[in-house]
Amino acid sequence: MLAEIITIGDEILIGQVVDTNSAWMAAALNDIGIRIKQISSVSDDRQHILTALAEAAKRADIILVTGGLGPTKDDITKNTLAEYFNVGLVENQDALDNVINIFSRYNRHMLEVNRLQSQVPENCEVILNKNGTAPGMWFNVEGKIYVSMPGVPHEMMYMMEDEVIPKLKSSLKLPFIIHKTILTVGEGESFLADRIADIEDSLPSYIKLAYLPKLGQVRLRLSGYGEDEAFLKDKVEEYAAKIVERVANVVAAEEDIPIEKAILNFMTEKGLTLSLAESCTGGYISHLFTQHAGSSKVFLGGVVSYSNQLKESVLGVKKDTLERYGAVSKETVTEMVEGALHNFKSDYAVAVTGIAGPDGGTRDKPVGTVWIAVAVTNKTLVKKLTFGSKRKQNIERSAISALNMLNTLLRESGK
Amino acid sequence: MLAEIITIGDEILIGQVVDTNSAWMAAALNDIGIRIKQISSVSDDRQHILTALAEAAKRADIILVTGGLGPTKDDITKNTLAEYFNVGLVENQDALDNVINIFSRYNRHMLEVNRLQSQVPENCEVILNKNGTAPGMWFNVEGKIYVSMPGVPHEMMYMMEDEVIPKLKSSLKLPFIIHKTILTVGEGESFLADRIADIEDSLPSYIKLAYLPKLGQVRLRLSGYGEDEAFLKDKVEEYAAKIVERVANVVAAEEDIPIEKAILNFMTEKGLTLSLAESCTGGYISHLFTQHAGSSKVFLGGVVSYSNQLKESVLGVKKDTLERYGAVSKETVTEMVEGALHNFKSDYAVAVTGIAGPDGGTRDKPVGTVWIAVAVTNKTLVKKLTFGSKRKQNIERSAISALNMLNTLLRESGK
Repeated sequence: MLAEIITIGDEILIGQVVDTNSAWMAAALNDIGIRIKQISSVSDDRQHILTALAEAAKRADIILVTGGLGPTKDDITKNTLAEYFNVGLVENQDALDNVINIFSRYNRHMLEVNRLQSQVPENCEVILNKNGTAPGMWFNVEGKIYVSMPGVPHEMMYMMEDEVIPKLKSSLKLPFIIHKTILTVGEGESFLADRIADIEDSLPSYIKLAYLPKLGQVRLRLSGYGEDEAFLKDKVEEYAAKIVERVANVVAAEEDIPIEKAILNFMTEKGLTLSLAESCTGGYISHLFTQHAGSSKVFLGGVVSYSNQLKESVLGVKKDTLERYGAVSKETVTEMVEGALHNFKSDYAVAVTGIAGPDGGTRDKPVGTVWIAVAVTNKTLVKKLTFGSKRKQNIERSAISALNMLNTLLRESGK
Repeated sequence: MLAEIITIGDEILIGQVVDTNSAWMAAALNDIGIRIKQISSVSDDRQHILTALAEAAKRADIILVTGGLGPTKDDITKNTLAEYFNVGLVENQDALDNVINIFSRYNRHMLEVNRLQSQVPENCEVILNKNGTAPGMWFNVEGKIYVSMPGVPHEMMYMMEDEVIPKLKSSLKLPFIIHKTILTVGEGESFLADRIADIEDSLPSYIKLAYLPKLGQVRLRLSGYGEDEAFLKDKVEEYAAKIVERVANVVAAEEDIPIEKAILNFMTEKGLTLSLAESCTGGYISHLFTQHAGSSKVFLGGVVSYSNQLKESVLGVKKDTLERYGAVSKETVTEMVEGALHNFKSDYAVAVTGIAGPDGGTRDKPVGTVWIAVAVTNKTLVKKLTFGSKRKQNIERSAISALNMLNTLLRESGK
C-alpha cells in the first residue's frame, strides 16, 4: 500500500522551519505497513496544490496533506480541496462545537474567521482536533483516501495517533506487522552485519531486518509481516533472541528507546543513583537524561565545571593536578569522577573533559581530544578519545561515548 | 528566479532521518534572492527520479538534487542524470584525484567502487567535494541549471557555501539583497506588529519585513532588493534603526543570532562572567550556552541540582527553606541564585526550579509551575511562570524565559 505526503505552506519553502512532520508521519505509516512514495512541500498557491494532489493520486492510494488550515486568508487548503473534488463548503456542527469550546475554555472572544474554520468540503468526514480549532478532514474518493490535517506538529500528531492511524487500519486490509527493536552501541553497522550475517540469511521471507545507525548507535529493527499475529510475534521474538544472544556485549536495550533512557530504566529498576561532572559536554548529558519523565528517581544532578575553579571547589580536583597535567587529562577526569561520586553521594558517576573546539587545541592535545571516566564505588574506568574539529559533533560524540561506557559498567557491576 | 529541491533516498521516506538539508538550502537560496517552488523527496528509483526531474524543470529554472551519490549499487542518481540528459559517463581526473587523496590521507585501501565515484555524466562540470569522495555536478542544459550534491549534510553545506552559491550568483543576474535581522524577546508577534505598524506601512516597495516567531522570540527580518548596494544598505539600516528605537525594550540583538549568543557577546565585550543553578531545565541552559565557541570566556559553569541534597551541598540552600517552602518556591530559587553567585564567584547568575512534568504536580503547584531568578551582586529578580503539561516544552520555555530575564537584567545593569 503506497501513500504520499504533501505539506503546504511557505515556512518550509523559505527555510524558516524544518519539516519534522513528514519524517514522523512516514515512520508512523511504515509501522503499519504503508510505504511512502513521495513527500512534496508546496506553496500556498491554488494551482500548485491542485497539481500536487493530482500527481500524488496518480502514484499512491493514500494522500496525506498537512498545513494551510489556519484562519487567515493565506490558508487556502480547504477551499482548494473543495475545488479539487468539485464540491461546496458546508458548516459542520461538530467542528463548530469544537471551536466554541476552545474559545470558551480560554475565555476569549470568537471572531467570524474562527467560526469559518468549521466549514468543510461537503464530501468529507470531519476528524476532531482536540488541540486546535482547525478540523481534520477525511475523504474517500474513487478508491483513494485523502486526509487533510493541520501543520502544527502536536495537533497533527494527536490526530494521527488517535484518529487517522486507527481509521487507516480499519479501512484498509493491512497485514499484521510486528516490530521489535534492539539498540546496540559501540559497534559499526558493517561489523554488526558481519557478526549476524548467518542469522540474517536465515530469516524467513516474512521477517525483514533494518539497520538504523545514528552516531555510535545502531538500532536493529525486525519487522514481521503476515496474517497470524500470535505466530508472527513468536517468530520475531525468536529471531530477536538469537541476535541479542550473538551480540550481547553491545546490546543496550531490547526496545526502541535511546541509550540514556535504557540506562534510566535499568538504574530505576535496581534503585541506583547517578551524578555527572561535565566539562566539554557542557550540560548536554544532563539534558539528555532530564528530558525523560521520571529521571529524578535516578539522576541526583551534576556540575558543569567549565572553569578550573569549579572543578576545584565543587568536585575537589586538586590545584596541583590541574597545574601539572592540565584540565584535559587522565588525572583530572579521574579526580572529577571520584569527586562527583563522593560529593554528590551517588552510586555511579560520569565525568567528561575535553577540547570541543574550534579553538583551544595544542599540538599534544588537539581539538577533539576528550577524556571520559565512569565510576562506581570500587571501580573507575577511564578512556581517551579523539574526535574531529567540529564543536557540535564533538559534544554529541563525547556524550554518546560516555553513555556507552556507563552502560557497559552498569551491566557488568550493576546490582 | 525559481528553484526546486529534489532529495533522493529512502531514509527520508521511511522516516529514519528528518530532512534538514532542504530547509538549510532553502534559507541559503532565499538569502540570495532565489525562491523555492517545491521540495520533493523521492525514492532511489530510476523512473521516479526521471519524472521528478522533468516535473521540476517545468516549474523552475534551477534544480538542486541531493543524495544517492554513494558508492553502493542502490545509489543511482548519477546514472539517472546521465540517462535524463541522454549522455554517457566519463572518468573525471579532478574527481579521481580527490578520491585518491582522501583514501591516502586516511591510509585506507581504495576499492574499485570508490574509483567509480570519479565517473560523471559527460555534460557536467565537476564541483569538488572537499569533505567526501562523491563529486558534485553542475549542468547547464537548455537554459536550466541542475546541481547534484551528496546528501551528507556537511558535505552538501560546504559545497553550497564554497561553490554553488558563488557560482549561482555569478551565473545569474540576481538583484542585490541586503538582510538585517533584529532579535526580539518576550513580546508576541501580533503585539510587535501593532507597535511598528506605521513603520511597516511606510516601508518602500523594495524593502520587505518578515516576522519569524519561535518560542517566546520573534526575529524581525528586513530584506532590501535592488541594484544599488550602498543605497540599499543605507535604507535597510535606516528602517532597522527606526524599529529598534520603537521596540528597544524587547530587542536582544541586531543581528541573526539566538538569544544566548547575544548574551555571550554582550558579556564577553564587558568582561562579565556567568554561572547557573538549574533544576527543572536539567542542564539545557548550560547546553545552550556551551554549544557556542568561546562560551568559556563568560560561562564558568553551573550545577544541575536535581536533588534537594545538591541544592543544599553545592548551592547552600537551607534545609529549613526546602522543608518550609518546598523546592519549587520563591525562597528556594532566591537561595539557589545567590548560592551560585557566591559559590561560583560569577558576576551574574541564573537559577530555575520547577515542575517539568508530566508527574510531580500538586493542587497548589501544578505541573508547569516554574520559578526563575536572575542576579547580579546588588540585585536579584524573581519571577513565577506557569506553563502547560508537556515536559519538553516546559523545559524549553523555562530556558527561554530565563535567558530573557538575564538579558533584561544585563542591559539594565551590565557594565
